[in-house]
Amino acid sequence: MKRLFALTMISLPVSLFADTVTAKTAFYDAEKAVTYRQNALNVMYHNFKTMGDMIKGDVPFESEIFAERASDFAAMTAIPWAGFQVEGAMPGTNTDALPEIWQNWDDFKQHYEQLQTDAQNLKQLATAGASRTELGQAVKTAAESCKGCHDDYRAD
Amino acid sequence: MKRLFALTMISLPVSLFADTVTAKTAFYDAEKAVTYRQNALNVMYHNFKTMGDMIKGDVPFESEIFAERASDFAAMTAIPWAGFQVEGAMPGTNTDALPEIWQNWDDFKQHYEQLQTDAQNLKQLATAGASRTELGQAVKTAAESCKGCHDDYRAD
Repeated sequence: MKRLFALTMISLPVSLFADTVTAKTAFYDAEKAVTYRQNALNVMYHNFKTMGDMIKGDVPFESEIFAERASDFAAMTAIPWAGFQVEGAMPGTNTDALPEIWQNWDDFKQHYEQLQTDAQNLKQLATAGASRTELGQAVKTAAESCKGCHDDYRAD
Repeated sequence: MKRLFALTMISLPVSLFADTVTAKTAFYDAEKAVTYRQNALNVMYHNFKTMGDMIKGDVPFESEIFAERASDFAAMTAIPWAGFQVEGAMPGTNTDALPEIWQNWDDFKQHYEQLQTDAQNLKQLATAGASRTELGQAVKTAAESCKGCHDDYRAD
């Protein structure tokens, strides 16, 4: 993929993609879609868990770094869901995503939109310099949204 | 990590993290920082390449989907760089990142800020329903920013 990427960046000529199978991105390839959403969820997770660690005191609480993590967490809450909408990736292979996601898409969507709302709230509090107690409550609220979705839609 | 994640989401008790080594996130662990930035760059790549594929005609051009990819690409251009700032991940192991990044951090930063500007411009054009020709030019501009940074700061 690396060479393909480097070449793509230079000129984007059609001829480079004679092999359209290898050229397919996550939005047109089920296996890549699963990896895509897992990568995005993992990036989201690291930001979220760092905030949790700060609230608990496992790492030093630094408001500026907390606000950066809150901002990146909020941005990431918009990203993974496109990877659940690719043909063949419902649920796809090598995934803990349950078929119930697609049987109850509107509910799943409501879950991830709630998480986005929670994350925006957390970001605003962090940017405004809210207290550690207030931030801790906002982290807990977002954690409950994560858990609610995982309980229904992720294999144990 | 999965079990740790599930437990974290429930209550965030300190006791779960007696093993602080395994609990460390990408922002406090060099190896995880490298994976983090690679995951983020990969998510960014899939969004960008899909737009390039649409411009070239390798996949159908659909303005609404293009705008979604442009939006997610713009969001992702803010994310990977924190992973380059973690102690021990400069450059870290299993990475194509060159030491020159940290020798010329201000220049590296200028590169990724330029990419963010390019991506915001692309997003605005896509949201405003710009022509495929205009979008193609904006994709090319962003591609040149990618390439400029890779030429200087990524191993071949």
